[in-house]
Amino acid sequence: MAAESHTPGDGIELGQTQYGKSEIHLVHIDRATPRHRIRDVTVTTTLRGHFTDSYVTGDQAGQLPTDSQKNTVFGYARRFGIGALEDFGLRLARHFVSDIDSNTAARVQIAEDAWQRIDVGGSGHDHSFVRGGAGVRTASVAVDGTGDAERVAVVAGIRDLVVLKSTASEYQGYLKDPYTTLPETTDRILATSLVAQWRYADDAVRAGTVDWDGAYQAVCATLLSTFATLYSKALQHTLWHMGRAVLDEQPDVTAIHLSAPNKHHFLVDLEPFGLDNPGEVFYAADRPYGMIEAMVQRSGAADAGAPSLDWPELDR
Amino acid sequence: MAAESHTPGDGIELGQTQYGKSEIHLVHIDRATPRHRIRDVTVTTTLRGHFTDSYVTGDQAGQLPTDSQKNTVFGYARRFGIGALEDFGLRLARHFVSDIDSNTAARVQIAEDAWQRIDVGGSGHDHSFVRGGAGVRTASVAVDGTGDAERVAVVAGIRDLVVLKSTASEYQGYLKDPYTTLPETTDRILATSLVAQWRYADDAVRAGTVDWDGAYQAVCATLLSTFATLYSKALQHTLWHMGRAVLDEQPDVTAIHLSAPNKHHFLVDLEPFGLDNPGEVFYAADRPYGMIEAMVQRSGAADAGAPSLDWPELDR
Amino acid sequence: MAAESHTPGDGIELGQTQYGKSEIHLVHIDRATPRHRIRDVTVTTTLRGHFTDSYVTGDQAGQLPTDSQKNTVFGYARRFGIGALEDFGLRLARHFVSDIDSNTAARVQIAEDAWQRIDVGGSGHDHSFVRGGAGVRTASVAVDGTGDAERVAVVAGIRDLVVLKSTASEYQGYLKDPYTTLPETTDRILATSLVAQWRYADDAVRAGTVDWDGAYQAVCATLLSTFATLYSKALQHTLWHMGRAVLDEQPDVTAIHLSAPNKHHFLVDLEPFGLDNPGEVFYAADRPYGMIEAMVQRSGAADAGAPSLDWPELDR
Amino acid sequence: MAAESHTPGDGIELGQTQYGKSEIHLVHIDRATPRHRIRDVTVTTTLRGHFTDSYVTGDQAGQLPTDSQKNTVFGYARRFGIGALEDFGLRLARHFVSDIDSNTAARVQIAEDAWQRIDVGGSGHDHSFVRGGAGVRTASVAVDGTGDAERVAVVAGIRDLVVLKSTASEYQGYLKDPYTTLPETTDRILATSLVAQWRYADDAVRAGTVDWDGAYQAVCATLLSTFATLYSKALQHTLWHMGRAVLDEQPDVTAIHLSAPNKHHFLVDLEPFGLDNPGEVFYAADRPYGMIEAMVQRSGAADAGAPSLDWPELDR
Repeated sequence: MAAESHTPGDGIELGQTQYGKSEIHLVHIDRATPRHRIRDVTVTTTLRGHFTDSYVTGDQAGQLPTDSQKNTVFGYARRFGIGALEDFGLRLARHFVSDIDSNTAARVQIAEDAWQRIDVGGSGHDHSFVRGGAGVRTASVAVDGTGDAERVAVVAGIRDLVVLKSTASEYQGYLKDPYTTLPETTDRILATSLVAQWRYADDAVRAGTVDWDGAYQAVCATLLSTFATLYSKALQHTLWHMGRAVLDEQPDVTAIHLSAPNKHHFLVDLEPFGLDNPGEVFYAADRPYGMIEAMVQRSGAADAGAPSLDWPELDR
Repeated sequence: MAAESHTPGDGIELGQTQYGKSEIHLVHIDRATPRHRIRDVTVTTTLRGHFTDSYVTGDQAGQLPTDSQKNTVFGYARRFGIGALEDFGLRLARHFVSDIDSNTAARVQIAEDAWQRIDVGGSGHDHSFVRGGAGVRTASVAVDGTGDAERVAVVAGIRDLVVLKSTASEYQGYLKDPYTTLPETTDRILATSLVAQWRYADDAVRAGTVDWDGAYQAVCATLLSTFATLYSKALQHTLWHMGRAVLDEQPDVTAIHLSAPNKHHFLVDLEPFGLDNPGEVFYAADRPYGMIEAMVQRSGAADAGAPSLDWPELDR
Repeated sequence: MAAESHTPGDGIELGQTQYGKSEIHLVHIDRATPRHRIRDVTVTTTLRGHFTDSYVTGDQAGQLPTDSQKNTVFGYARRFGIGALEDFGLRLARHFVSDIDSNTAARVQIAEDAWQRIDVGGSGHDHSFVRGGAGVRTASVAVDGTGDAERVAVVAGIRDLVVLKSTASEYQGYLKDPYTTLPETTDRILATSLVAQWRYADDAVRAGTVDWDGAYQAVCATLLSTFATLYSKALQHTLWHMGRAVLDEQPDVTAIHLSAPNKHHFLVDLEPFGLDNPGEVFYAADRPYGMIEAMVQRSGAADAGAPSLDWPELDR
Repeated sequence: MAAESHTPGDGIELGQTQYGKSEIHLVHIDRATPRHRIRDVTVTTTLRGHFTDSYVTGDQAGQLPTDSQKNTVFGYARRFGIGALEDFGLRLARHFVSDIDSNTAARVQIAEDAWQRIDVGGSGHDHSFVRGGAGVRTASVAVDGTGDAERVAVVAGIRDLVVLKSTASEYQGYLKDPYTTLPETTDRILATSLVAQWRYADDAVRAGTVDWDGAYQAVCATLLSTFATLYSKALQHTLWHMGRAVLDEQPDVTAIHLSAPNKHHFLVDLEPFGLDNPGEVFYAADRPYGMIEAMVQRSGAADAGAPSLDWPELDR
């Protein structure tokens, strides 16, 4: 990480700083027709820039209040609508970097809660909605610099995607050490609450050629169907195949990061009560849980958009 | 509430007591065919009875450990499957009262997380699932006494049913006092996270004639469509009509209780930025929130099953 | 519960209703001297009354908006300060019932987060604070009627009081059924996150003779020291003795309700690794957990203030 | 980040992976004397290494189950006690790297909940405790390699340290853009829930000369007293001075990272009710909130231990 370092003079300096407004919960109603459309997004803005004075002397002249950032999000929602999360993020991030001199970079993170039309007599209602759906769509956009020097990175994602396989999952042949007591199994429940984040190739982002919503739907479908159909030798094994299936099908995606808690389901021992338990009754544990993480990326991904996902462009 | 009162001798007595095991998280896989079925329930058991010694002298001879209650839940899931939540609750509650002498009453509360089959190539997968759906189904069953003296009550419900109307909702004509500054409105967002609980007539419960799953689906559909189609003069107004629509359509339901936080969506003032805001951009607030509650019941409901929902039969 | 029942005409009626504003988070700074005092309270107001029209026809003329209730809480904090939680609650509840005709009863629930002065050079700072302390103080005040017909009830409490004994706790001699596998133990960890609520005698409340803050401190000290010093035969046993110690020492308290999740700490089996475990290493489980509840009350408590804690006066 | 990259052959490769067991909640009772000592820690282990086969082919031969990692944590607690969090973390991390061939690096993160002795008659009880205290102590230890090639990094911290100043805090002179409406103020409440993490110099860690517990106490005292006594021109200003005060006083600390949500307290407008509000009644908002972050570091810190806090040694 290239720190913004400043030496006030005695061997102690300010390293990397950033600030912004977190969790601006905005609901947008598109009333262009009587058939309203609703978007429910929670937006976090983060700025980097020339902020030393703000910290060291307390002079705030270069720093845009987080309250103004919040206002900007609301104002932009009115001026431009929400559209694809990635576009909304790009517009905001570019504004913060281009229009406020003291900012050198900006990141905009967005999560969207899904609403469905309430079914009335077989068809969706015009202006009444119920929350639902699997997982929460996310997007994170980072912009550094302006004009020709602009670097930009777009990472789309989904979180809280809770999935479970009731069979076709084993866990055996693992390394045993003196602390290993886990019995091997050829049939277990595999369950996780997936967080997936994938990065689009910088060239495609700059060219504006990515179909954000279409790609999002396609990636989610691939993640789900791969999870469903792969015979799993371990959660690690499943993650790799989910990731590479996405890369196989999405040429604009350079890398995908998967983070998956292993939500353990333990077969209950019913023998003391004279009962067998052929893979039927499980206790779903909360903690502790395994946590498996992997990046799956194109070889030479750095040329098309670095696989790093946090302020991605800045970390190249 | 008729307290179980015992006087150890000096003017201080034990009043009502109860104990049990909370939040037993059980996943059941029905493997009768390769097309597995999954049920994901969280069960809480609560017992009442002759427990004075357990408290006053510390003699536990009459008290079944909560660990045994947990085991019973797992064992019954294996022996009988889950079935309708209401049946699973009845079976467990009757067991605790009938088979353990020191218990006089038992309540079993169940919440069910919904899973959907993962779509693969247009059809649902046999053994891979994704969590989703609107709201969490609940059931609470209370049993007091055995045999002819048995009293039983069944309360079904749904919670976390988050609904929103983007128009056709007003709030005006309310009482103004010196602390009233709220402007009246003829068009606002109305949103809530509904908790609904409805009680079935005792006679129907005893006769075993209620179609638990069918009634649940029908009640939820009625709640949603009434919310959607009613022009709302207030959240109170909406709740009444939701409740009475359920009673109109479900002869076995004697009463329904609705608890509805008013999830405020405030229109953002964009004028300082030279923008209007014709019902388009809202800030979704967390706290404080209004909380509106109502019981809607049949006249003379006490004859068919008291409208009270907490240990209902015991409170008559 | 005496329901407010109204029959709109076809066998379906409105039962008990209530509404209010929940979780008004208010911080009050007393700047009377440079040594500021801080109070951090979260207030919930709930009203009962003649609200049928509000629900059935949607006419809101009799209903004070929850927004006005919120404003009242803020205004009263300015006009009268916070003072003892019980006094703040009484003042608000009486206002809602006396000054707003359509209300017949009001309940005000308050929770207080504790702050300590930051220690600087050995003494507490004048205007800088750190949050801390064990448990959250609560108060619930209900008022029904006005003038001579006024009934009033005050319930004080503490929640999130997490306590643990590392020995002097057994669990044995309990009832065994076919589902019992729990081994008996003469030495275990006993831990809970206590919720205690105690009611003051109505006469003392009306006479205004209770030292709210002093009584609160004394009750908490009694609860803690009883938990600490009693050899526990079960959590039930401990609760009874905690409750009766409070009644022994606090003549103004008519009843105390204790609700205690049994936070299980399981001794880890280290034998597979060639290690013993003499009561030293425990796994702290989250779910499921036992839940033990008891009311401890004076004989004939109903004459001095009913032991019921929810809208207590109304339930007599 | 130097990714562990492997090319299965078609332009798609595995990048950085890691896995482990999260949130192992362990309570340790030291019974060496009748005056028990309690430690309540939640441990997360994370391993990096040669894991390609585990992901790509599903062969688990090189991978230690997360269950075994959990067992190791329990076993080490019995064998060595807990001691300073940093020592416990170092011992575990070194074990995972040194004793398991396939691991190249390990990180151990620990959070400790604080318990106090219950006061009985003026002195702390031997074996009864109440949870309390300000903030949660944390430690994160990363080890990469073994023997002479070992690199090691220790980051200590505190989170959930909630602090508030009721005066001596201004916010003015900031940058105004067209979206700025925030009024300037010379007197406001400043409040945050601080997360602080500081890294110790690698040489001191290797030499084993850091007094972990003493340094922790001293850093926390410095953070608190600086927050209390500094006249704050902004939260940024306060963070810088908190950080540099720590570096001034702790020669072994090379860098400290501060992450501080600005917990907004808005002065309530009471004018509509005919009341003034001279800095007395505030509404404490939940969301959105500002988020201010800063690294404060020694010039040339990389020579003594990189300021980066996530897998610090590996990121040099």
